[in-house]
Amino acid sequence: MSSRARFTADETRERILTVAEEHFRRVGYAKTAIADLANELGMSSANVYRFFPSKSAICEEIARRMLDQCHGLLRDIIADRTASAEDRLARMTMTLHRFNKAQFFDERRLYDMVEAAMTESWPVIKAHLDTLVALFAEVIREGMAAGEFIVRDPIEAATCFKQCHVSVFHPTLIAHCAFDEDLDEQTARLTRFAIRALKA
Amino acid sequence: MSSRARFTADETRERILTVAEEHFRRVGYAKTAIADLANELGMSSANVYRFFPSKSAICEEIARRMLDQCHGLLRDIIADRTASAEDRLARMTMTLHRFNKAQFFDERRLYDMVEAAMTESWPVIKAHLDTLVALFAEVIREGMAAGEFIVRDPIEAATCFKQCHVSVFHPTLIAHCAFDEDLDEQTARLTRFAIRALKA
Repeated sequence: MSSRARFTADETRERILTVAEEHFRRVGYAKTAIADLANELGMSSANVYRFFPSKSAICEEIARRMLDQCHGLLRDIIADRTASAEDRLARMTMTLHRFNKAQFFDERRLYDMVEAAMTESWPVIKAHLDTLVALFAEVIREGMAAGEFIVRDPIEAATCFKQCHVSVFHPTLIAHCAFDEDLDEQTARLTRFAIRALKA
Repeated sequence: MSSRARFTADETRERILTVAEEHFRRVGYAKTAIADLANELGMSSANVYRFFPSKSAICEEIARRMLDQCHGLLRDIIADRTASAEDRLARMTMTLHRFNKAQFFDERRLYDMVEAAMTESWPVIKAHLDTLVALFAEVIREGMAAGEFIVRDPIEAATCFKQCHVSVFHPTLIAHCAFDEDLDEQTARLTRFAIRALKA
């Protein structure tokens, strides 16, 4: 029985993604070729291409999973309804900031893959940004119902709330100013400011 | 009398800056060498270097002047004290957005010089950001005095107010999303949101 036959198509897809992510972190996205991954997987490049038409498609799937993981963290915070809407928004912004920052400053970095995803996989990023607005809007609506917030249009408010934090959410901007100041404090300050706008 | 002798040192400095800016707009910053400028000026490269130690130093001076021009536009708005603080803040954010956007979408672009300035001339950019905070704080203080705004710390409020607009102020972000949506409307929406925070 050949090694190839031991894996189902789904398992092979998973193996490719796991090996690719590990490789991107270790070697860098730009410096990795499909042939490198195929080599590490003991597969031919042609076989890898049967699962993913391009390196970009692999990057897109890894980015999608990372972002799903991020949304999971935010949903856990939203689900803690013992906390006020204001507190949950503050925990969400800090979580998002730290999640995005970790892509750059963890020991094993995915920086250039994240940059590539933002250029090459815009639909995935766009869906992520829409999800963020929906999640913020959910908490803002709960805050309205609880009398914490006075907001006319929760989707517009959530859009602005998210947008106000671009300097601490956007990977490129985090990378530029990460050594300048305490970004956690900047995140908290921006959230306090933006929450005032929800209460006005 | 040689052509060289016809110009004072200050005049030569000006000529270098004028020719350099024109050249950067036409050819691009990255593609321009000091030798190209020297050639156009009818000077030796060594002579250009007597005035500016590097292309980066020329870029820095052009960026400084552009930013001074931008601050002038904002100061004109601030000086119109017939308008409310809120109205002046809204005019300032729109002016800043359009000024930064113009660097990318005007017929003759300085895009790559702006990018270079943000990397190579960070002190000039940092001074610009500090000036923006000071200008916003001035109007916020006037709004406090007029009973328009309720703010504890006008510098912190001005910092947050500016930061909330990063997505429509930051050249790189403007360049990324300029074709996505109506950025003027996004600017106005963010300003309305941020002004609510000043009133809370």
